This record gives sequence, C-alpha cells and structure tokens, in this order.
Amino acid sequence: MSAHQPGGPRSELGVAMIGYAFMGAAHSQGWRTAHRFFDLPVRPAMSVICGRTESATKAAADKMGWADWTTDWRQVLNRDDVQVVDICTPGDTHADIAIAALEAGKHVLCEKPLANTVAEAEQMTATAQAAQARGVLSSVGFNYRRTPALAYMRRLVEEGAVGAVRHIRAHYLQDWIVDPEFPLVWRLQKDKAGSGALGDIGAHIVDLSQFLTGQRLTKVSGHHTRFVERRPVAQATSGLSASGGVETGEVTVDDAAVFFGRTDGGALATYEATRFATGRKNAMRIELNGSAGSIAFDFESMNELHVHDGTAPSRDAGFRRILVTEPDHPYTGVWWPPGHGLGYEHTFVHEIADFVRDVAAGTPPAPSFADGLQVQRVLDAVERSSAAGAGWTAV
Amino acid sequence: MSAHQPGGPRSELGVAMIGYAFMGAAHSQGWRTAHRFFDLPVRPAMSVICGRTESATKAAADKMGWADWTTDWRQVLNRDDVQVVDICTPGDTHADIAIAALEAGKHVLCEKPLANTVAEAEQMTATAQAAQARGVLSSVGFNYRRTPALAYMRRLVEEGAVGAVRHIRAHYLQDWIVDPEFPLVWRLQKDKAGSGALGDIGAHIVDLSQFLTGQRLTKVSGHHTRFVERRPVAQATSGLSASGGVETGEVTVDDAAVFFGRTDGGALATYEATRFATGRKNAMRIELNGSAGSIAFDFESMNELHVHDGTAPSRDAGFRRILVTEPDHPYTGVWWPPGHGLGYEHTFVHEIADFVRDVAAGTPPAPSFADGLQVQRVLDAVERSSAAGAGWTAV
Amino acid sequence: MSAHQPGGPRSELGVAMIGYAFMGAAHSQGWRTAHRFFDLPVRPAMSVICGRTESATKAAADKMGWADWTTDWRQVLNRDDVQVVDICTPGDTHADIAIAALEAGKHVLCEKPLANTVAEAEQMTATAQAAQARGVLSSVGFNYRRTPALAYMRRLVEEGAVGAVRHIRAHYLQDWIVDPEFPLVWRLQKDKAGSGALGDIGAHIVDLSQFLTGQRLTKVSGHHTRFVERRPVAQATSGLSASGGVETGEVTVDDAAVFFGRTDGGALATYEATRFATGRKNAMRIELNGSAGSIAFDFESMNELHVHDGTAPSRDAGFRRILVTEPDHPYTGVWWPPGHGLGYEHTFVHEIADFVRDVAAGTPPAPSFADGLQVQRVLDAVERSSAAGAGWTAV
Amino acid sequence: MSAHQPGGPRSELGVAMIGYAFMGAAHSQGWRTAHRFFDLPVRPAMSVICGRTESATKAAADKMGWADWTTDWRQVLNRDDVQVVDICTPGDTHADIAIAALEAGKHVLCEKPLANTVAEAEQMTATAQAAQARGVLSSVGFNYRRTPALAYMRRLVEEGAVGAVRHIRAHYLQDWIVDPEFPLVWRLQKDKAGSGALGDIGAHIVDLSQFLTGQRLTKVSGHHTRFVERRPVAQATSGLSASGGVETGEVTVDDAAVFFGRTDGGALATYEATRFATGRKNAMRIELNGSAGSIAFDFESMNELHVHDGTAPSRDAGFRRILVTEPDHPYTGVWWPPGHGLGYEHTFVHEIADFVRDVAAGTPPAPSFADGLQVQRVLDAVERSSAAGAGWTAV
Repeated sequence: MSAHQPGGPRSELGVAMIGYAFMGAAHSQGWRTAHRFFDLPVRPAMSVICGRTESATKAAADKMGWADWTTDWRQVLNRDDVQVVDICTPGDTHADIAIAALEAGKHVLCEKPLANTVAEAEQMTATAQAAQARGVLSSVGFNYRRTPALAYMRRLVEEGAVGAVRHIRAHYLQDWIVDPEFPLVWRLQKDKAGSGALGDIGAHIVDLSQFLTGQRLTKVSGHHTRFVERRPVAQATSGLSASGGVETGEVTVDDAAVFFGRTDGGALATYEATRFATGRKNAMRIELNGSAGSIAFDFESMNELHVHDGTAPSRDAGFRRILVTEPDHPYTGVWWPPGHGLGYEHTFVHEIADFVRDVAAGTPPAPSFADGLQVQRVLDAVERSSAAGAGWTAV
Repeated sequence: MSAHQPGGPRSELGVAMIGYAFMGAAHSQGWRTAHRFFDLPVRPAMSVICGRTESATKAAADKMGWADWTTDWRQVLNRDDVQVVDICTPGDTHADIAIAALEAGKHVLCEKPLANTVAEAEQMTATAQAAQARGVLSSVGFNYRRTPALAYMRRLVEEGAVGAVRHIRAHYLQDWIVDPEFPLVWRLQKDKAGSGALGDIGAHIVDLSQFLTGQRLTKVSGHHTRFVERRPVAQATSGLSASGGVETGEVTVDDAAVFFGRTDGGALATYEATRFATGRKNAMRIELNGSAGSIAFDFESMNELHVHDGTAPSRDAGFRRILVTEPDHPYTGVWWPPGHGLGYEHTFVHEIADFVRDVAAGTPPAPSFADGLQVQRVLDAVERSSAAGAGWTAV
Repeated sequence: MSAHQPGGPRSELGVAMIGYAFMGAAHSQGWRTAHRFFDLPVRPAMSVICGRTESATKAAADKMGWADWTTDWRQVLNRDDVQVVDICTPGDTHADIAIAALEAGKHVLCEKPLANTVAEAEQMTATAQAAQARGVLSSVGFNYRRTPALAYMRRLVEEGAVGAVRHIRAHYLQDWIVDPEFPLVWRLQKDKAGSGALGDIGAHIVDLSQFLTGQRLTKVSGHHTRFVERRPVAQATSGLSASGGVETGEVTVDDAAVFFGRTDGGALATYEATRFATGRKNAMRIELNGSAGSIAFDFESMNELHVHDGTAPSRDAGFRRILVTEPDHPYTGVWWPPGHGLGYEHTFVHEIADFVRDVAAGTPPAPSFADGLQVQRVLDAVERSSAAGAGWTAV
Repeated sequence: MSAHQPGGPRSELGVAMIGYAFMGAAHSQGWRTAHRFFDLPVRPAMSVICGRTESATKAAADKMGWADWTTDWRQVLNRDDVQVVDICTPGDTHADIAIAALEAGKHVLCEKPLANTVAEAEQMTATAQAAQARGVLSSVGFNYRRTPALAYMRRLVEEGAVGAVRHIRAHYLQDWIVDPEFPLVWRLQKDKAGSGALGDIGAHIVDLSQFLTGQRLTKVSGHHTRFVERRPVAQATSGLSASGGVETGEVTVDDAAVFFGRTDGGALATYEATRFATGRKNAMRIELNGSAGSIAFDFESMNELHVHDGTAPSRDAGFRRILVTEPDHPYTGVWWPPGHGLGYEHTFVHEIADFVRDVAAGTPPAPSFADGLQVQRVLDAVERSSAAGAGWTAV
C-alpha cells in the first residue's frame, strides 16, 4: 500500500536501503528512530537492505534491524513492501540506482553528492522531475541542513537577522588523511568518489551557504591540490577509518580545495574544503556577515549558534552563544530539556522525519535533485576554474 | 529471509520499564539502540512498560516501542518475559519497586537518586546485596558516568594525569525554574522528590566527583536555600517543561545548594547545585586540579575534555581541548568518525550496553546500590549541616 | 603647591611611592601613563621612591622614572614635592605608613589588603575619616575594579541587567606555588602577608562581589587549608617568581580557602581562592545570576564580558561575548579602536587616573579605607569560621 | 639626588616622530615605555614631533611627551638631537619622508604599508640598502610580529612544531565601516591610503603568514570589492572613529579583499581582509596546518595561542590554549606574572625595544624595507589578479 494512500488505521512506509557502510549505519539509525520522537503520519518499515557482499549484507541486516537482505539492488524495485529507496552507496552508482528506482515508482532519498558528474546529475534531475509529475518524490541527503542550529540559522536569515549578506565564509576542515600511510580507500579514487575533499565535504558547504542565504553562486575562482600522491592500497575499512598494506596506488582526487565566488545577491563568498587541517576533526564552519548582523556556526560545537545583532548599541553588541536546544528551536522540542545536546546522527533522524512527512503528504521534499544538480554545477565550475588557471568561471 | 531468527543461539533479555516520562523516553532510546551499535552477548527485548494512567501508558508503549503495557507494576514481576526491571519513576517509589523486583529475582536498573531517604537506600542496598548472592544484579543510573569525556577523564585520573588531587570543583547549573510562574511540578515537592536541586542534580556531581577521583567525601559543610516559596499548581508537564494555573502551592524543596567537603584522599571539594543559574541550561561542570595536572569538563560541551599537563614546560602548557570522539576513547569507537559528536541520550545507550553486558556475564554492575547509598549519605550530611548552621558534618 | 589648589596654568601632583617590587612596577606605569591618555586636571609628578635597600631603590628610581629616592619612608612625609603617598609594601607595614602619611597631610593610595588585621584596618579607617575632614584623602587599591569589563559589569548591574541577584560565584584560581620546590617568599609568611590565598587574592573577589552587586556579605561559612607545609627559603625574587636554596622553612599561611555566604540583598555567594589550581594562571572569575539575567567574567580573557539577557525569548537567549573595547565602555575611549585589547597594567593606569581626578576635585575616592576594612572583616570572619568548624560566622 | 644623569655613560637616542594620530599615539607610548621595562643599551629621547596643523601638533607634543614640535618635517632632518625618524603618516607620504631621512643619515622606522605603490617601495628599498652600507638603518612597522603569541608561534614553527606547512589560513576581519553613514576618512581614499582593507589590514596578514612560516607567496588569485560606493565627507576623526556631514564623496578603495596563493614551500594559503565583518572588531586570525601539527591565533584573544601536536596519540591530541604570558615566552618576562595579559600597545613597545637594540648594535632590524617591498608586491599581484579576472598572477 502506498504511503500517502493510507488504507488502514496505521499504514507503513516500506524502505529499501542500498549500501550499509558509514552512511548506511547513519540512515538506519534515522529509519529506526524518527517515529519514536516525531509524530509521523506513517511509520517507516525497514523492509530490505542491499549490499554487494552476502555475508556482510546479512550481518548488516541483523545488526541494523532490516527485515530482509539482498545483494541485487534491482530486485528491491519489484517488491511491494518497498515504497522508498534510500541510496547510501558511493557516488558512481547513484545515477543508475536512482533513475531505475524512480522509474519503478519508488520514492528516492539519495546521499550527496547527487552524482559524480554534472551530466549524470542532469539526467537524474530530469528523471526526478518527470517522476514528480507522477507523484514519485525524491530528495538528496544534505543532512547538515537538519542540524537544529543550522535550521535555526536559516530561519534567522529569513527573518532579516543578517540583513544584506556581504560575506559568506565557509570552511570544512578535517584531518583524517594527514598521515601519508592512511590507505587508498574509495573516497580517494576518482572513479568511485568523483572528487576528493571538494565533492565530499565541499559539497556540504556549497549547499549550506546557498540554503542559509537563499542566494546562489554565479561565478567562482578556485584551485584544488593534492599533498600526498600515493598511498597504501586499502585492506579493511570501517566508517572513515581503514588500514593498508605495502602495495601503493595513486591518489586520484584532490586533498584540498579553495575557492571564492559571488552570489546573485551580491555577497562575496569564500570556501575551503580540506582533509589536511591537522587537529580539525569535523570543523564544518560557516559564518555570514551582513548589514544587520552576523551568525557563525562550527559543527564541532553543533549545539551552539553564535549570533551578533549589529543593530544593538555598540556597548551591548557581541556574539551570543545560543544553545540550540530550546523547545522553540527547530527539531529540538521532541528531544530533551534545554542544554541536553544532540549529536551527529540526529541530523539523519530529522532528515528522515522530514522526508517521511513530505512523502506522506505528497509534497516535494527539499533539497530536490535540482538543488543537488546546482551544487554539482558549482563544484564543476571550481574544477574548471582550477584547471584553467583559477580565473572566474561561470556556474 | 528474515534477519532475525529468535529461538537460535542468541537469547534475549526481557525488560520491563516502570515510568514513561523524561527518564522513560531516555531509557527507551537506550533499550532500542544499544545492540544496534554495541556487540552485546544478549539483546534486550522491550517486553512491557508500566505507568499509572492507562491511556498514557498505552500510547507510550506504542510510541516508544514496548510490546505490552500495564498499570500495575507488581504484575510485571510475575512475567516470564521480564528479566530486568528498569525503574524510571519519582524517587518516593524506588524502594518499594526495587525491593519487590529484586526479591522476585529480577535484575534492577534504578534511576538516581537511589531513594529519597538514607533509610530507604539502606534497605534497598541490603536487599541488593542479598539478591546479588543469588545472582540477581542491580545498578543505579548515574548516566553521566557514561559520557565518553567523563569515562575518559576517569581513565586519565587512574593513569595519574592529575597526580595528587588538591581541588575538586563541581557545579551543576540549570535555570529551568527561574521564572516564578513555572508551576509546582513533582520535582519541587519534597514528598515526591525528596529534595530539590540537591538530590536531583547535586546527586550527579557528588557521584561523579567520587567516581572520577576514586576518593570519598568524609565531611561536608553545606547550605541550601529557596528563592521562590510558592508556585502555581502544575497542570500539564512534558520532559522538564510544564504549565500552571492560578492556584498556588508551597515549594517544599531547595532551589539551590552549596557545600564544600574534604575527601579521604586529602582533596578540598566544592559543590554548587542550582536551578536558578539564569542562562545556564545544563552546565554540569567538574574540574580537578592536582599535583601533576588538571582536567575540566562542562556538559554543555559534552564532547570536549580540557586537559592540562602540569609537567609540561611552562611555555608549552595549556588546557588541551580534546574532542572525545576518537576510536580509542571510551564508547565512541562504535559510533561515528572523529568530530561527529554524540548527544545526551547516548549516556543512556552506554549505560544500558554496560548493564546488559554485566547482567549477561553475571558481573555486578557499577554503580551499585551501595554507591547510590553513599551518595545519599553525602546529601543527607549536607542537609544536616545546613539545618545545623553549616558546620562540618561527617558523612 | 597643593594639587587641588592650582595656582598656575598647570599644577603638578607630587607622588612618593613606598615599595618598588611587583606592585611598585605596576603603579609606576600608572603614574607615568595616566595623563598621557586621560585628560587630568593635574599631572602627577613622580617625586621620590622609597625602598629598604639603597642600591635596589636607586636602580628602581632610574628604571621606573622617579626623580629621587630614599630608604627612609618617614623622610618623604616632610617633602613639599610630595602630596600623595602610594603604599606598595607588604601588608604588615601598611598601617604605620598610611597613618603617618595621613597625619602629615598627604593623600594616601594604599595597596590591598588594607592591613593584615582588622584592628589595624580599623585604626587606619579612623585616621582616614579624620583626615578626610581636613581634606586629606585616601583609597585602597583594589585595582580590578578598574578593569573596563568589570566597571561595565557594575554599570549593567546598576541598570538592572541582572535583576534580583540570586547567585554570586567568585573564584580566584592561580597555580604559582603548585611546585613544592617554589620557595618561601614573603607572601607565604603570616607575619608579612597576614594570610595566604585568602588575603592576597580572596580579598579581590570579596571586594569585587560587593562592588559589583552593591550588596554586603553578612555571614560566612569557610575553610582554608595548606597542601605544602615546608618550602625552601627564598633567595631571589622578581614579580611573583623566585628561587630557593636547600634550607627549608614553615609555610604559615593558607594555600587555598573556600567559603560561602549570604548577603544583605538575599544572594547566595560562593568563593574559592587558591594558588593550587594547576593550569589556571590568573583566573579571577566572577559570575552573577539573577532574576533578569546573568553576567560572567574571567580575567584570563579580561577584555571580554559575557552577558545573558534572561528576558529575551528563549530561542534567542545566550551569553553575549562583548569585547569591552568600545568608545562607550568605561575607560576604553581614550585608548585604541574596538577589538584592540588592554592589559593588566591598565587597571593601574585607570586607578591612578580616577584617584588623581578625585584628589584634584577634593572628592573622596572609592574604594575608601572603610571599604577595605569591610573586606578585612569578611576575611576575618572566614578565618574565624574555619577555625571553629566551618559554621556560620557573622561578618 | 637625580635619578637621571644625562651626559654620563648612558647616551640617548633622539627621536623625531612624523604624525600624531592613531599610530602616533601608539608609537609615543612605545617610545615612552620601552626602556622602563626592557634593558636597552641606549634610552630613547622624544626630541620632536611633527604634524601639519600647528595647534594640534603642539597639543600632541604636550600630551604625548615630546620635548619639541614642528610643522615642517624636513626641518627635523637637520637636528642634532634626532637620530631616528619615526614615520606615522598616511602611506602617500612615506616615500618622500623616508628617503630624505635616510639620506640625511637618520635611522628610519616607517609604519606599514611601506608605500602606496611598488615603485615607491622599490625606491625606498634601494635607498635603505644604500643607507645601510653607511650604517644608517631602517625598518617597516609590522607591529603584530611583536605580539608575544605570534613571536612564540614563529619560534614553534622554526622548531618544527608544524612540520611541512600545508595550509595557511589568514583572516583580518573588522567591522568599522559597516554603517554606510561612516564618513569618508583618508583611509577610504585611494590617493592617501593606496588601497583599502587590502593594504591596511591585508598587508599585516601577508607579512605575518610569510614571517611565521619562512615561506613566500609566489602566485596569487584574488578579488576585491566595494559594498558602499559613496559616504559622507569626514569632518572630525579620532583613532579609527570619525563623524561626517551631508556632503558625500566617492569611496575609492576596496572594502574587502579575498585571495589565495601558493608559497615557495608548497603551502596553500588563503586570505581575507575586510572592514565589513559585522561583529568582528579586530579579528586578525591566522592558522597553520602542517604534517606535524597546527597552530592558531586570533588577535581578539591576543594573549592566547592554540597549539595542536599532531604527533600525540589521537586520544590525547587537541588544541592547547597556551596563555603566552610565561617568563620564557617572547617579550613577556619583563612584564607581569603569568596570566596577567598584555594589550595592543605592547606590540609597539616591543617593536621599539627591538628597533632600539638593533640600532644601538648596528644590526639591520627586521622587518626590513625589502620585506615591506615584498609584501607590497604581493598586494600588487592581488590587485592585478583582481583586475584581470582573478586568474593566477605571479608575485
């Protein structure tokens, strides 16, 4: 039975998840938990998980709570107990799976980046738009939008707390491959990942900067680089950690990317995405400066937002450290009392709660595949600028 | 094919939970989640939830994922599908339930404070010790011990990072009843709650300070006070929030308590527990200063630990902000990559994972009822000191 | 010519300084600098410096910019080029010098603590009040009141930013004698210093807490202790640093003191003063929590004030980090642009600017000797409480 | 007896200062104070100050402590009591004054930026190198190098604490002209100031990034912009503050500049200089990430350095907040005890102490005019890149 056609007292929304690694674990926690805290019109049913390796997939099903498992993703498209396909695989497989699922009439939640190329993303977006006309919905998983502090930041910007945005300052700083002995995992291979820091974490800050300001980058000047050229071939991985052997292979993606741009609203935006910021673990930082105020965020302190009211008397003005854990903050009311913070995985719980509500209501969820495509176009412009001497490149 | 094959080598641990409010929601998330991330020798089965009101209990069972419900807690003691009783009710009911459960051969996890009086706590402890001889185990839920940063703090102290402890500085600062119109909820009534800030949040910092240092308070000098004498009678509550009407009633517990003490290891310890620290939401702060170094923690930034190595050259010494999210930190390895923080509820997931492991292994879990009794004795000494002019009072 | 009897286009205010160590250097910078930034009705003239050792005093005069020097403090009282005596010696000499100076018609600025005993402080205060009737003025040097952030904090409290004060939380944490080999300097000898952490740094937070709130402590419960009983005899000192030899002597003052108290305004106040807070260098911290808001300060970040508006909507409330460097903040307008911070020594520049203005105008400066006496009485009550089992002791 | 005996073995170094506004006040405090704390081989004598307006210059001489004054800067070059010319005027006059002074045999300390154009800076550098051969020395006033935390940062980098530098992240964020009514002061006029945020504050972070790493930028990609095109004509100024009237004029400099670059050591460097970062007062921030560690600094907390040791075990690694106030930190030993911080003006006291020592010893001081020229070339490359579409531009 379709999720937005409830036929009984409580309908379920059957989900198939493709992939079971880092994102698979995070999404599973989302599917298990969303209806335990949020009042959803329909509850997710974790119907089937799909992976490439039988033993690992079977173990993941048991561990993560999926009712069934398979190694053939095409098979799930035929199941009646699947209304949603949740794609958690590397970027090179997104287009095939998403297009097939949409065409099979399944709603799709696809991890970011939407695809590894603009061409793929365009095809996916076209398919999504056609599917939407048939009531089949889709969304790309920029989970950080569902961080309560960032959702609240957007609301503040919409209310005018920043005024005319002059500066966007976005950094995503990690250090997980500073060690040259860290192995050549799939995220370091262009054929699998599309790009390196740029697509993996740069995509998040491009999306966020546009989401938070409601403005879009029109041109960029960028440069990306690689600090370590060869690494040991990966032998075992878990989450973002892995171990390697003696054989080495070529790193084919960027280690770091920097770029600046101008938006259609007149802002000057700067970006840095790197996996070589020693000591910075998950410092996704974004700050907006405007004619009326400023707001700053750092994911390493994800329950805080720092808000400056530029219209206050100078003697009283300063960045307010708001603990975004109040009942009237986005998402937080269903959780714990003020000051009892949330964690990384809650971004997925919120993403899935929003997705389920939208699917149940037949409302196209945000961010759409078109939003994912636009991010892809920005990343592509950065790559083209970098390849052509860093000059301005239109998005 | 089913991912879950009951009846095979993996047995289940049936749980009954008494209470379904704030602590009930937190514990339920623990019972649902622990085995999804930790490898447990036995999986919890959420057999039955018990509350006073039928409709609310039934709704809680459905929402939180309990298979059955009842309004009679004594009934659950006879069920074969219950091996554990998890007590999440106000303190005035702990003794009755815990003693009956232990005598019925059920393992018990009891929320803190263990009881509202030392006498009750003594009785519970005696029962627990007798039960333990029969293989029936028990623990009191000082969940903050399972905060990764605090578990790591304990490990550091054990390794000598602080040296001889000179100062313990423990604050638990909240502001949820600063507004005099906040209603008279059960936590503000002595017959239900036993005491106010002292027993509710002071209990946590007493337990933590002793847990972290391995030292026990031997005497205290204390004082507690009330800033708002009467409040509107409560009409509806949710978590720690509530609304009130026009009728008022007398607040019968303390709003704030301060005390200092000496430990059996020679440390000078200071404590402050208050619900009137405007702007402090859940600032459970503890700092140790010793001959070799210092460590500081604040729950409002629960993923951070600040460690000072006093043996480093003065030019290099400073408080290190450690993000306690590394694979080799306590509890964190099963979760997310470094820098992807955890939240409040994870303390319960960890508590339950530890409890399940201990129960499965037949190992008495910590903290024991005796530990809870010792905390109760400290709180009692503070109350006696306060009543008798703040002079030194033996624990 | 007398400072407040200007007879020409620019009169001078002749100053004699007694003492030339840590406080002497700080005060000298104040006397040299105050009129370079502040518009003063009269400029200080650094007439003469007095010390016990001829060679050191002579060198200090040259280094610090004093026109003349002497080893006999009584001699300076007869000089026509001295209108002010600035006392920077250890506490055991304050009473003799201050009383003689006031009786000789010299205005007196006396370092804190006012004296080593309440009896001395009473005598000094009586003398000061008699002198004031003759137009001879006096003040005690609680320099931290002149920290711009703390002066602004007082203004905010006066304006009602905190409302009814519920909590005063005052800590002064240092670590300069954690090393048991640190020598037995005069500050560790009761006959010179009067007391240890209590009188040296505890005095500052007692004064500040009363200054900031306008409330006075009425009773206290306290305890002080010593962690290191014997130390090497001091051989050479400079500022707060020193070196020692093989001979040891007995430490006769406290290493740390803790106390709590109640004020005449109903606040509950807690204090901790220690020289054993490893890693805390000059953490003079004070926080007020009230019915309308909270304000927090830490001298280790002396240009910042953290202000919480408890009347703001909960979604917007948070501690604002105000950089107290704006033109409309106290003292800062004459210095540098916003964000260009001041340092420790500026508290003395401000203290001296205020003192000079008051002396020129014939206005009794604050804090008065009576204020210093009141602080002394609080410290004395703490000592009596500590000696008598920590019970409540009236101030 | 006099403390000061001119004519004896201690000679004096006569100084003429040109300019008396913001930088004049800061330098004067340096000249007055340096020998009061540092042991200098020769003491500065503040011989004469020079300004354009007679009344203001005369008042400045009196207020700031200069023995004489003049309105003709050429006149000071003939004075026997002048050995040093200290140039504190806007950038358009630097070349004329510096060249004339050096040719007159006077040592020169010149405020940054060295000049408004590369051509001027080249001429000044050639003159300086010729003068140096005659023992006439010169330096450009990049005062921030003398911030103790930054001087210590350089030492740490030299010792290998960062290893191979991968990232340089340098921001200079101010907000003093966010208000469009802020008037058109000389700093906003290209003919006086040369450029806007780029030359004024961007110059500092370019210099610092190269000073701290020992690496030089070889190419840059940059962009600068203006957010407010016209402003009221300035009527009165003080420090960086000013007021304006109804008449408006065109702003001819940049409001903000962003650029990235590569260094001769392989680092990827990013820069942002802006006067539109609402709420950021003087946030000069620089962070280095390298193979062995990271160091971060923010001038708004100028007494702190944050150092991450990347070679520490992951469980112990974190950014250490070092209070750079220890006796073994650069410059701090002559000031106050640990934790008693310094302020903005101390950077000038240190700059002048270093300059005086070098002049006395005949050692060429750093940074040299050649260093200033190199910074100018970087800024020029940024301007050329910005004008030519942001592409890579060689320095």
